[in-house]
Amino acid sequence: MNAPAFAQNLRRAIPAGFLDTLKMRFGSRFSTAHAVCEHHGRDESPYPPMLPDAVVFALTTEEVAWVARHCNQHKVPLIPYGVGSSLEGHLLAIQGGISLDLSGMNKVVAVHAEDFTATVQAGVTRKQLNDEIRDTGLFFPIDPGADASLGGMAATRASGTNAVRYGTMRENVMSLKVVTADGRIIETANRARKSSAGYDLTRIFVGSEGTLGIITEVTIRLYPQPEAISAAICNFSTLDTAVQSVIEIIQMGVPVARVEFMDTAAVKATNAYSKLDLKESPLLLFEFHGSPAGVKEQAEIVQGITHDNGGMDFQWAEQPEDRSRLWTARHNAYFAGLQLRPGCRASTTDVCVPISRLAECVSETAAELDQASFPYTIVGHVGDGNFHVLMLLDSDSPQEWEESEQLNHRLVQRAIDMDGTCTGEHGVGLHKMEFMTAEHGRDALDLMASLKKAFDPNDILNPGKIIPLA
Amino acid sequence: MNAPAFAQNLRRAIPAGFLDTLKMRFGSRFSTAHAVCEHHGRDESPYPPMLPDAVVFALTTEEVAWVARHCNQHKVPLIPYGVGSSLEGHLLAIQGGISLDLSGMNKVVAVHAEDFTATVQAGVTRKQLNDEIRDTGLFFPIDPGADASLGGMAATRASGTNAVRYGTMRENVMSLKVVTADGRIIETANRARKSSAGYDLTRIFVGSEGTLGIITEVTIRLYPQPEAISAAICNFSTLDTAVQSVIEIIQMGVPVARVEFMDTAAVKATNAYSKLDLKESPLLLFEFHGSPAGVKEQAEIVQGITHDNGGMDFQWAEQPEDRSRLWTARHNAYFAGLQLRPGCRASTTDVCVPISRLAECVSETAAELDQASFPYTIVGHVGDGNFHVLMLLDSDSPQEWEESEQLNHRLVQRAIDMDGTCTGEHGVGLHKMEFMTAEHGRDALDLMASLKKAFDPNDILNPGKIIPLA
Repeated sequence: MNAPAFAQNLRRAIPAGFLDTLKMRFGSRFSTAHAVCEHHGRDESPYPPMLPDAVVFALTTEEVAWVARHCNQHKVPLIPYGVGSSLEGHLLAIQGGISLDLSGMNKVVAVHAEDFTATVQAGVTRKQLNDEIRDTGLFFPIDPGADASLGGMAATRASGTNAVRYGTMRENVMSLKVVTADGRIIETANRARKSSAGYDLTRIFVGSEGTLGIITEVTIRLYPQPEAISAAICNFSTLDTAVQSVIEIIQMGVPVARVEFMDTAAVKATNAYSKLDLKESPLLLFEFHGSPAGVKEQAEIVQGITHDNGGMDFQWAEQPEDRSRLWTARHNAYFAGLQLRPGCRASTTDVCVPISRLAECVSETAAELDQASFPYTIVGHVGDGNFHVLMLLDSDSPQEWEESEQLNHRLVQRAIDMDGTCTGEHGVGLHKMEFMTAEHGRDALDLMASLKKAFDPNDILNPGKIIPLA
Repeated sequence: MNAPAFAQNLRRAIPAGFLDTLKMRFGSRFSTAHAVCEHHGRDESPYPPMLPDAVVFALTTEEVAWVARHCNQHKVPLIPYGVGSSLEGHLLAIQGGISLDLSGMNKVVAVHAEDFTATVQAGVTRKQLNDEIRDTGLFFPIDPGADASLGGMAATRASGTNAVRYGTMRENVMSLKVVTADGRIIETANRARKSSAGYDLTRIFVGSEGTLGIITEVTIRLYPQPEAISAAICNFSTLDTAVQSVIEIIQMGVPVARVEFMDTAAVKATNAYSKLDLKESPLLLFEFHGSPAGVKEQAEIVQGITHDNGGMDFQWAEQPEDRSRLWTARHNAYFAGLQLRPGCRASTTDVCVPISRLAECVSETAAELDQASFPYTIVGHVGDGNFHVLMLLDSDSPQEWEESEQLNHRLVQRAIDMDGTCTGEHGVGLHKMEFMTAEHGRDALDLMASLKKAFDPNDILNPGKIIPLA
């Protein structure tokens, strides 16, 4: 479970006096303490920490620009840090350098309720935002599970349980304030709902994982809190029939807000971890948003489709506290899974395929995993064709790590062969880099590399991520 | 009404033998005939034609790649051409070179009805696509009025009347096949509904107006044909109350499919041109999509809001032929407007502002235009905050042209001051280039220029557009 070979022995030398200058500028908001560096050199990926040389806690865009200029001048790596919830090694300082902690930039800058937009500093988390805007009657739907920062979510092109209805960060970021590699401050767009005025800088930075610029403010779209919400669960005797139901629901055009899948192992783990008594078989969790009549209409169609596919025990969770308990349990499926094998280290997959291929992709994957020497769970944002395998590995077993990597390789190849992607929402980081050529082809990757070179000629911004090194 | 000064006297020399090589390769699908070059050196902009040196009619992506390699090697401009319906001078060969006509690439390559996607060659037009997929129960909603090619719509980041509900080309292009400046062929993405696998090449090419690569295939999202559709019109005594109604409808979160505004002059022109008898006062046109119950619910809310704002004569158009007549008339508003001043040349504006500023922006603009020495109409995709002024100018009057340019300048500045954009959907072409610095700032524009340089180092792809020349 070491870092990939290409990420080893790459640390850059820090020029003499470089850190002293940062120390003078930032005082107590600068640290080289081991504990601080270790905290900033890890994420939720299966890799061990790789530490930055120092951490700077920035409070303003101008401070970020100052640090970028300083790093760029001396060719020192600079890695933006939100809350550390990334899953693929995005934050690991494989070349050393400075971790730039933006969690102190946590102000909601503006809420334009009449336009359904808000502008927040990069360190604002999604829960904080929704708490602060609750009185407006609006909410921000993108929900990757973790209480991630909006800056990090934009940088990772995150999505999660609500994406089937509301889209991902790609669709919901309207504009960004970005610090470039050489320390200039730009706004990528304005608050017009649409624009054809030149290249789409916003979408260039969304999903760029800190490699093209440092996001310091995010303007996002908000949505009216639904007049009515209801949730439901439905069990199935097989994985196939559960997934088939989802395909039919999406193909009917039902604007379901959430439709999540959990396999039997994930349900068992969740029952144990969240003290629930869900029936332990493949499960779908639904949420419907709309007018009372609209929600009723959606739910009836869904109930019909699941019934026709052998769904059992369609149960409603109409009270907010019941819904909340259910979704909290779903969000904790990752941690619940970890408890299936105490002390284990987890590796997660993240493929996404066209919905027509989803049942086939999940089934073939489960059949292979049933032969594995470690336990696993499958959960998924199946309305988007996106699912995760959580593989629970013995931390001390290189064999299990190797086996899990091979299974993931085959899964990714399966997804690519089905016209899908190696990562639906986690991002590339380190762990998905090896699939970039297979997914995009050499020529498309060359274009990406030329973009990186144009925006960051000294390769200081989160270096060694996304694009495989030559 | 000449081309902007920066676009004059820029023609590049064509190397000896260059055209002969194209002629040998393409035979009768190569032309230097004046009529053919003139047809390909103009669009619907107010500028006179600027002719390419030759036109090539390509039939395959490989042919496009061959032409790109040939042009790149000899640094000859290459301008992709769809149907010629752009409005801002996108297609004008200000530096001469080759116009690459893709209208013969008009095959629907694949329809994946179960995934709600289709892949089409760049020359397929939106009406052709909708005709060919009608039996699937799906449709492609983006409707800019003109029967544009899908390649051109992607290149312009087009939208139109349905964008308030279904989004623009930005949201609805899933993947592109693109020929790079040096003649390589790439796919920008796959058919997964979402992906976090690296830089968003798709969104880089959407809206790039042929300056970064040549789009030869487009994979787009399709939508279920609505179970129920109804349309309605409503008159107002003032522009303000009409626009205020739209703001309230959007703020209520009503998922209206279309909401279009026409001022009194536009209604009069439309009555004359399309032989209708609409009441001649500010008008809103609505369309609702959904289940029968959903459509009814939306319409009731909208009827209530318009009534509260003094809307009069709310009238339904429930029959398909009535709806069709209404929307055809709306789409012909441009041509209807031209007839208000026979023989005139039109100049159109295209600002888009946050919806909260829309009424103010439209009112201030109308007040200024009322003092102008030429007639005008205002129509708009007001649900998005986007509206167009059609200024009807004496073709022989430099004064009127100058006056219209000044009015547009003030309008754009007003929109930018309201956190809006100089172009909601037309694109930059030549006519909006002068606003790019004011809208984006010098540093953001520098980033765009570095992207252009990275993707097209010899500046052969539609050169001199979007980014102001240094």
